[in-house]
Order: sequence, then C-alpha cells, then structure tokens
Amino acid sequence: MIIVMKPGATPREVGAVLKQIEERGFRPHLSKGDETTVIGVIGDERALQSAVFEILPGVERVIPILKPFKLASRDFRKKDTVVRVGGVSVGGGTFTVMAGPCAVESPEQTLECARRVKKAGAAILRGGAYKPRSSPYSFQGLGPEGLDILARAREATGLPVVTEVMAVEDMGLVAERADILQIGARNMQNFNLLDAAGRQPKPVLLKRGLSSTIEELLLSAEYILSRGNPNVILCERGIRTFEKYTRNTLDLSAAPVIRKLSHLPVVIDPSHAVGVREYVPPLARAAAAVGSDGIIVEVHPHPEKALCDGQESLTPDAFDRLMAEIRPILKAVGLELS
Amino acid sequence: MIIVMKPGATPREVGAVLKQIEERGFRPHLSKGDETTVIGVIGDERALQSAVFEILPGVERVIPILKPFKLASRDFRKKDTVVRVGGVSVGGGTFTVMAGPCAVESPEQTLECARRVKKAGAAILRGGAYKPRSSPYSFQGLGPEGLDILARAREATGLPVVTEVMAVEDMGLVAERADILQIGARNMQNFNLLDAAGRQPKPVLLKRGLSSTIEELLLSAEYILSRGNPNVILCERGIRTFEKYTRNTLDLSAAPVIRKLSHLPVVIDPSHAVGVREYVPPLARAAAAVGSDGIIVEVHPHPEKALCDGQESLTPDAFDRLMAEIRPILKAVGLELS
Amino acid sequence: MIIVMKPGATPREVGAVLKQIEERGFRPHLSKGDETTVIGVIGDERALQSAVFEILPGVERVIPILKPFKLASRDFRKKDTVVRVGGVSVGGGTFTVMAGPCAVESPEQTLECARRVKKAGAAILRGGAYKPRSSPYSFQGLGPEGLDILARAREATGLPVVTEVMAVEDMGLVAERADILQIGARNMQNFNLLDAAGRQPKPVLLKRGLSSTIEELLLSAEYILSRGNPNVILCERGIRTFEKYTRNTLDLSAAPVIRKLSHLPVVIDPSHAVGVREYVPPLARAAAAVGSDGIIVEVHPHPEKALCDGQESLTPDAFDRLMAEIRPILKAVGLELS
Amino acid sequence: MIIVMKPGATPREVGAVLKQIEERGFRPHLSKGDETTVIGVIGDERALQSAVFEILPGVERVIPILKPFKLASRDFRKKDTVVRVGGVSVGGGTFTVMAGPCAVESPEQTLECARRVKKAGAAILRGGAYKPRSSPYSFQGLGPEGLDILARAREATGLPVVTEVMAVEDMGLVAERADILQIGARNMQNFNLLDAAGRQPKPVLLKRGLSSTIEELLLSAEYILSRGNPNVILCERGIRTFEKYTRNTLDLSAAPVIRKLSHLPVVIDPSHAVGVREYVPPLARAAAAVGSDGIIVEVHPHPEKALCDGQESLTPDAFDRLMAEIRPILKAVGLELS
Repeated sequence: MIIVMKPGATPREVGAVLKQIEERGFRPHLSKGDETTVIGVIGDERALQSAVFEILPGVERVIPILKPFKLASRDFRKKDTVVRVGGVSVGGGTFTVMAGPCAVESPEQTLECARRVKKAGAAILRGGAYKPRSSPYSFQGLGPEGLDILARAREATGLPVVTEVMAVEDMGLVAERADILQIGARNMQNFNLLDAAGRQPKPVLLKRGLSSTIEELLLSAEYILSRGNPNVILCERGIRTFEKYTRNTLDLSAAPVIRKLSHLPVVIDPSHAVGVREYVPPLARAAAAVGSDGIIVEVHPHPEKALCDGQESLTPDAFDRLMAEIRPILKAVGLELS
Repeated sequence: MIIVMKPGATPREVGAVLKQIEERGFRPHLSKGDETTVIGVIGDERALQSAVFEILPGVERVIPILKPFKLASRDFRKKDTVVRVGGVSVGGGTFTVMAGPCAVESPEQTLECARRVKKAGAAILRGGAYKPRSSPYSFQGLGPEGLDILARAREATGLPVVTEVMAVEDMGLVAERADILQIGARNMQNFNLLDAAGRQPKPVLLKRGLSSTIEELLLSAEYILSRGNPNVILCERGIRTFEKYTRNTLDLSAAPVIRKLSHLPVVIDPSHAVGVREYVPPLARAAAAVGSDGIIVEVHPHPEKALCDGQESLTPDAFDRLMAEIRPILKAVGLELS
Repeated sequence: MIIVMKPGATPREVGAVLKQIEERGFRPHLSKGDETTVIGVIGDERALQSAVFEILPGVERVIPILKPFKLASRDFRKKDTVVRVGGVSVGGGTFTVMAGPCAVESPEQTLECARRVKKAGAAILRGGAYKPRSSPYSFQGLGPEGLDILARAREATGLPVVTEVMAVEDMGLVAERADILQIGARNMQNFNLLDAAGRQPKPVLLKRGLSSTIEELLLSAEYILSRGNPNVILCERGIRTFEKYTRNTLDLSAAPVIRKLSHLPVVIDPSHAVGVREYVPPLARAAAAVGSDGIIVEVHPHPEKALCDGQESLTPDAFDRLMAEIRPILKAVGLELS
Repeated sequence: MIIVMKPGATPREVGAVLKQIEERGFRPHLSKGDETTVIGVIGDERALQSAVFEILPGVERVIPILKPFKLASRDFRKKDTVVRVGGVSVGGGTFTVMAGPCAVESPEQTLECARRVKKAGAAILRGGAYKPRSSPYSFQGLGPEGLDILARAREATGLPVVTEVMAVEDMGLVAERADILQIGARNMQNFNLLDAAGRQPKPVLLKRGLSSTIEELLLSAEYILSRGNPNVILCERGIRTFEKYTRNTLDLSAAPVIRKLSHLPVVIDPSHAVGVREYVPPLARAAAAVGSDGIIVEVHPHPEKALCDGQESLTPDAFDRLMAEIRPILKAVGLELS
C-alpha cells in the first residue's frame, strides 16, 4: 500500500501517518519527492482498510499495491487448474464446448437438444431449471422438475450437466443432480451463494457480472476457493456498455487477462453477450482463436417456440455448422476439443 | 409491441408474422410505409416474448411499447405511495433523513451515533449487521448480534431502524428486528430475495444496482409489489461509469425520472455514490433541491476506526453541519423534514 | 511515479529499472516489501513516459503519483479564478445563468429569447451559430449570419454572448463577434482547436466530453492555459452511460470534485445532460444547491418549431418559473446571482 | 417514425399529432390498442425532427424506425465496398494487415520498421506524423517532417502509407503525401474534419470514438460518403468501459454487426484497444477469426525508447510470430492475406 501525501502536507501530518502504520503492525517506508511525500506500507495489506489512512489530514490518496485476491492468482499457483467432471477436462490446453437450451422446457426438447449437441461435438450439456428473469411476469423455469429432466438427458447421452443455482436453499438439490453448478451474472456478488458454493463438492461455473471488473470476478472466485472448493471455471458473458446493437459487449480481452492473472480456466458465452443469433458463430470462432478454454452456447431445437431467449439460440443445424467452423481454428491454434 | 420488417420483406414473410400474432391471441395492425412495413401487435404485450417474432424471416426488429412494469407505474397508481414506519412517513411531500454507521460495530458506537443523528434531525437509523463485501477477507458484519444492537439503539432513541438483509434464510430474523429491510445494490436482481421480501410485512428499501437501468429497478420493485408488499422505497446510490475520482457516479436525474414513472418514494445515498467524505454534503444538498424524498447518509463517531467505509463517513459534527445546510434548502423547495 | 515489480522479480531486473531511472535524470527510491518490491521515481514525472518502465522485464505496473495537469490545478493556484466578461463575473462565489436557444434560427427568435431570459435574470446569452450534428442531414446552423444575429441581440439587451466554435478556421471570426467561445463536448479533445483557443484573447467555455474523465477535462483546460489564455470556464453536461430514460447522465459530483482539484469555475448544463424538458428544472435546482458557479440552459420561444433540440428547451414562461425556484436556493446556500 | 401516446391521451391530443404530421407533408397511420394509441408516420423520417412530436401534449415517446444513415447502409448498397490503394485491396474477402510505429520518430526507426513489417506480411505501413495527446506536455509528432519520412519509407518498400490527419488546415498536405488518411477516435465527431475528408480524393480510415455507438460511427461515415468520397474503411479500436486491466474494451462484435448493417470494410486495432503488448497477439488472432477485413497493429523496433505508446508496441520479432499465428487462422476461415 502506498500513501500519497498532499503537496503541502506538514511534518506533523506525515508523522501521524507513520504512527498509524506502526500501530497496526506494519512498517512504513518514507520517500520524499520534490512536490510530494510518498509513504510505503510494508506487510500484507489485504488485512488493512485503506480508509484508515484516507481520512487522516494531509493524505491525498491511498494506492493498493498487492492484488486483493490470493488463492485465485497465478502468483499463488503457477500451473493451470484443470477442472475434471465426468470424464471431461476443462482447462489446461483443451477447448470445451457446453451447449443446450437456455431453459429446460420439456423432456423432449431437452433430450433432442442433448443428442444433437453431443453429436456435433459438445462435451457438456447446459440448460436452466431455475431462471433469473428481470420481470416477475416472465417464465421462471421448471425448478426441481427441470433438474430431473436434465438428469435423464445425462443418462441418455452421457453428457455431464451444468445448470444454474440461484438460492442457497436450492444448493443441496442442484449439487445432487447436476455436475457443475452455474452462478449467474446477476448473482456474481451474492456472497451468501458464493459461500455456499464454496462449501459443497461440485465444480462451479462463475459468470462475470454485467458491470463487474475482472478483479471483482476474481474476488468472487476467491470466496469459493477460500471456502474449500478449488474447482472454479470463470465465464465471460458480456459487460454492459452504451452500445445498443448488441445486448451486451463481449469483452474477449478478459480471456488473456485472466490467463495472466489467474490459474483458473475461462470460457466464453457469446450467446448472452450479443443476444442476437447471427452474431454468435463469429464470436464463438473468435473465442476459439483468442485462446480461451471453451464456450457455452445456447441451442434450441425450435427457437421460435422457446420460452426464453429464443432470439439468441442456434438451431441444431446452425450449431453443426458452428462446430464445423471451429474445428479448423482450434487446429490452427493448437488446441483440441475436450 | 411494434414489429419492423426489413426493407425487402416479402408478402409471404409479412403473412407469417400476421399469422403468428393471431395464433397467440393478439390482433395485428399493418402499416405499409415507403421503405418498410410496420406491424402493431394489439393486446397486453407483457405476456409475449419479443423473440417469438425476432427470429421470423424478414423481421428487422421488435420494439416493446408498454412499460414492462405495471404495479410500480404511475399509470397504475396516480397518488404518491407514502411508506409509514414507527411514526415516520417516507414520501408524499416530506424529506426523510436516514443516518448511521456503515456497519454496526459495537453497542457504544451504534448508540452514540443514533443519539447524535437523532439530535441533528435524522428520522431513521441506518446500520449494517450483514455486510456484503467484495473480498472474502473483509469484515462481514456482526450478524444477529448486530440486529440486537440496532434494536437496543431503537429502544433508547425511538428511531426506527433500516438494515440490510442479504439472504432468504435471514429474512425472518431481520424482519422481526428491523423496521425497514434494505436490499442492497448487489442483490437488486437476486430474485429469490425480492420474492421473499414481497411475502413479508415490513417495508423494503430497494437500492439500484451499480449497472442497473431505472427500468430494471422498477421491475425489481414490481417483484416485491406483485408478491403482496406495497411498501417499497427506491434508492439511487450511484452507478458505475468510467469516472475515477468518485467511486460511482450519482445519477440525480433518477429522482425526477422515477417520480414521473412511478408512485414509489425515492431516496438518495450520496455516501456510497461518491465514496469520499468531503463530497457527501454538496450532493446531499443537491438531493434536497432536486426533489427527492430523502437521503441516507453514513455517520460514524470515529471514522478513522471504522471497520467499513470510513473514508465516506461523516463525523457527527460534520453531520450537524450538513443538517444545518439542508434545512434552508428544504424550506426553499417547500419540503418539511419528516 | 511508482514502479511495482512482479512478485518474483530478480535483482538484475530491479537493477535495470534503477539504471533506467537514473539515465533519464531522475532519482530512484527502493522499497522492499514482503511480497513485492516497489521503486519510487523522484522528479517531475510529467516529462516521463510510463511506458519506458512498463515494458522492462519484471515490472508489474507503473502508477503515476503527480496530477498530470499543473496550471489548471488548485495546487498551482489556490484562489478561485474569476472570469470577467462584459461586466459579468463567472466564478468566485456568484451564480451565473446563461440561457438562450440551442441554435440561432432568426433575428426575431434570438431577440425575443434574449429579452425574456434577461428579464428573468440570466446574465449571459447562449445560442449556436455553428451546430455539431451527428447526422449530415440535420440543420447545421446559420454560420456567420448567426454570429451577426447574436451580436445584434447583445446590442439590444446588453447580454454578453457565448457561442460554439467548431473549427480553427472560424476561430478569428467567432472571437471577434462573441464574448465567450464555447468548445463543445465532441471537440473536447480536438487538440488543434484547444491550441487555437489558447492563443486568442476571449474566455473559453470548455464542455466535458461525453465519455471524458474529469482528469481529461482538466488536461484539455491545461492545453488552453498553457498557450496563454487563463480564462477557462469548465462545463459538466452529462456523460454517456447505459441508462436510457435520459440522454446522458448528469454527473453533478463533478462540481465539488473540480472545485477541489482546480481553481477554474464550473457550470452545469442540465439541458443537454437529460435531453427532456421536464427534468431540466429539478436538475438546475440541484446545480444551484451543489455549489456550482452557474448553469447554461436552453430556452426557446417556440420549442415545437425549434430546428434543434426542441424537446429539451424550456419556454420563456417555464424559464421564469425556474428562476423563481432557483433564487431561494441560492439564498439558502449563500450565493448571489451574477 | 412511431409516436406512442400516453395511456390517457385525449382525442384532441391525438388530433393535434395527426394534424402536425400532415402539415409537415407526411401521412399518419393510427392504431388504437387496449392501453395506448400508437401513430405511424409514413414518409422519409430522416428529414423530420422527433422533437416536433415529443413536446406535444399527450405524447409519451417517439421511436425512429428507419436507420439514420443511408449511403453507408447495406440496404443502399448490397455489395461489399472494396477500397483499393496502391495495389492493395481492403475489404471484399481479403485480410489486410497494417503495421508500423505509433509515432514517426526518425527516418531510421520508420524505415527499419517498414522493412520488417513488409517482410512479415503487412500490406500497409502505419505511422503518426501528427499525434493527438491528452496532455499538452507529451510529444505531439514531427508534423510535415514525419510525412516526408513516411513518403520515403513508401518509396523504399512499396508499402502504401496510412497516417492521421487532425486538422482541416493539414488535410491538403496529408492527402498529398499519404495514401490513406486516418481520422482518429477523438475526432470521429469533428464534423468539419469529416466534411473536408469527404471532399478530397484519398481513402479514409475512420476510427470509432471511445464512447461512440456503431450507429454514430456509421453516421460519421455518412458525412464522408455524402460529400462524395466513397472510400471509407471503418476501424474498431476499443470503447471506454469500467474495466481497468485493459486501456479500453475491444468490441469485436462490432465486426459482424457492421458487416450486417453496412457495405464498408472494417478493420480492428487491438493495440490501442488493450494498451498492453502481450494481449495484442491473442486479440489479433480473434480479429482474424471473427471475420473482419484486417488489423492495424503497432510495431516498434525499440519499444523501450518509443516516444509514444511503447507499452503496447510489438517488437518486429513479436510481429513475425503474430503473423505466423494468423496465417493458419485465415486459412481456417477461408480468407487470404491481401
């Protein structure tokens, strides 16, 4: 932590800062410049409130130096984390395709979808049993019945299942039925949910919030890791900006940034990011080329009848074409489909 | 709902849209322009997925016409909602000041704070027992013990208490101890929490999410209202932008915009919006002048020792000065302190 | 400037940074922490590219310490700058109201508007002769003829005139005819225009860009100041965010932030910020209460016939009411109308 | 244009809207719904101010239906525009790599760079002679001398040159010396500059503003096209968001969105978007996979000595590696290097 004093700070004010640092068990390091004085705080600043110094007279600003996350950082663990689930590996040099309907609507819809995406090369089935919706009047998902349908689709196809959990009270049931628990963008800072996800054994797919920084995403992952669950997959799914032709703005730079900062795998969700069916394939190709660990894509056998997000769902045929486009790109960048 | 066809849409494509509208029990209304054809959908569009039409061939885009919220809208209820709690009225022409520490830290801190803010003119005591924190390593609040401390401060001062609830499983206890339940910015789209808040009897202070539109805030209020709880107070607390000198950007226009769209009261939180102590008083004055229904301000007897957000907390003396500044402005705009 | 080394930086890498600092004529200051090494650079960092260090091996990041602007800073000049123009003072404890039509359309429209806003208490007449428009098909202003109309309105009413200049080649003519030159939001980083505005004698009203930080606004002011023109008035006019019910989001915190960082006066433009007529008065009241140095407001005698931005223009009657609302607020905060 | 009336609008208010539409030479089309009345305006709405209707009593909002740009739209011209410059084609199924230093610093630096990027496969040399800089204290470019250096590098290598023009008064000279004129992000809405660029014969590379929507970018292109210059290349270079690990957020979705809306070619600038050297190659690969028409990349023989943006410049060796990575991806997506 670096404390920058105001240009005219008095020796007395500087002294008070030094004293405060020492009283809290840290070592100060004074550096006088021509215009200003800067004081370094030596020790593990994660345990220190910057506000403690910000409000002292003569202090201009306080700059944290250490990354606020630890277990999630590449400094802590050099080697890529590989999340293994039902014979599939996520991370560590493969490319995993997760695909399926936005919402689980019926056994037929889910099973048809699962069979088609498996045939096309997907390794994991996605589908929502609990659906977070902005409006209380929209379809909210089938709940436990949806979990059953997903479990049966897994039995029939062998595909592991990822599905969203929205509430601590549902965590037990979802963890029992699904293979990966998804925490959605709107719950990325639902700290009770993160806490509970950290205390159960299934891997977690953690989506970046609409207006969350990458640092906040890694801090939310830190919640889960610090509670004892090492299997976290991060997901970039678009951030909120002023642009209106797409629903959100897909931040593909997040993939190389996260790869540098963290050992956790990161997958890309082009479907929710753009919200428009025809833009999904080009962005899925870009996700393969940028070096991410996979994609999660919405596929629906009859998008025109979908109860949720039909406008961004690919048909199974379109998904076949997408997979045919992605394979040569993966080859070009030296990745294999997992 | 308005469906805009692509410039070259064929009669067959237009026909398919008309058929789809009728099959869903709505009436179509066709309007042919020079460059494009536009089709109106007559009926309550809130029950209709726009995606149903967006994916039909020849459709360029679908524009919703009706506001997606209903119970929260001024069209539904012309008269201002006034939320009454322990002798205090929020909304309807008064200005309510809520003040207190960011986090409840001890009985002494809370009580000292409550006494001082009451003396200065605050009508409601704020204080966090459950604290949502970005980092798992930060102080997370005293929990149930914090609720007890708040209840005792209410007994000692008569001030009703507003405090945050973060989880459905805590809702019962918080509703029993507090007078107003706060749903924080990070939980504004935690739909299970909104649902539970709508099914209990205490008023709810609903904070706007960091990157939520006003429309989404009103939709989240709609969740609570539609579950049976009519007592919702909205709170603008700054939105996330690119500006860095303040923590967030206080969107004061939200007050007149919400007043036009909705009957619900709206209060302003300048403390969390700017995150810097010295900017709180000018923005609190602006909140009084803009015509909001009140403010919620952080006050701490010893900000330099605060366990949370000390840098944005006013001392009791600074709060006294703030109240002295606000009174003549309220008089100037014809409002009374509640 | 602070250089933060990566956790595992080698002594050789640290040595290379120290050497680079010294070769450029600065003094290094080394501070070894438990996890990382931090190096201070002592000297006037404004002359130094941070990239020089960012690309050295072992460097994690470089943090500037000094404010990048100098002449515009409160550190450089403690006393408020007061801009004097034709008997009117902007800044230094008064509140200046600038009002008039978005675009100068005719002598009658402009004169009628000037008379009405003067009678209501405005001190400066605004009006556009050159209009920056997103679309090449929109009305682009009357140009030199508009300048003449403004000059005649000044003669008739005594109100000094502020008008936008969009191009270096028009600077001479506009500076000859107008009393204050406005540089619009879209030109805030048109550095050639800033340069020319700094080399002519008339005061400049510099509007914040739609997505410019306050730091960038002050750097643009620095361009003008450093070329020899000390009379710069800053203007907050809304920034671009995701919110859609208002055209932009008015960042009222900019007023106290700029007052702290700079000695230059700052005025608020609520009309362009919200883009909706009925929200202008509450935000103008808030601008008075927040402690800004004035407002600039669009008024049109017949908004329904305006060639530009009619939807955000007040009628002269509405402007009368606004001024009646503002006077008691100014009294409450101890300011006088200039 | 669609005019939505307020729920309680009176027949008299509806009548006034109909009258206004007819008086302006358009045809109204009335559609009464259960909750609201909607009126279509038939005719070319680009000539119509929406404000005319927004301020009429009883009107809730006005929704434009037609795209505000015409010449730039895919509706106007179905076939891809191919910009030809010195034997190189931009657009229409090839992938063009533009590379070179951020700023032209010396004949040696520029020539060395030009030779290396040509050898690696670049088709066009980039380099700034006029540099827009946020701070008046930063290096502002060599000006005309820089143009000479670029011209000599072209003679030596045969590479056409793209360079930025910042001011109308420099347009003639830059158009004489360079092959493509760049209009930078900060000047995307400098309408005088757009106008002048539209009236000269050289192709224009138009960069998207930091906070400009794609619609605004296309409107700025429309300025150039409507003045008679059909050769416009669009460039996505990152937009401003809240994320801090990258300088801006590269909006790769802009490529497929623009391809759908417009016939103009679009290239990607990963260097300015991320501002960090090591993230440039993965995003350049993604730009190839997403289906854009090319990239523009900063390369400097000695980034540690660069006078501008060294932190984001690749070394020639790193650029060689980047080109080696891109070739197989282009092959995978069926594009050829131009």
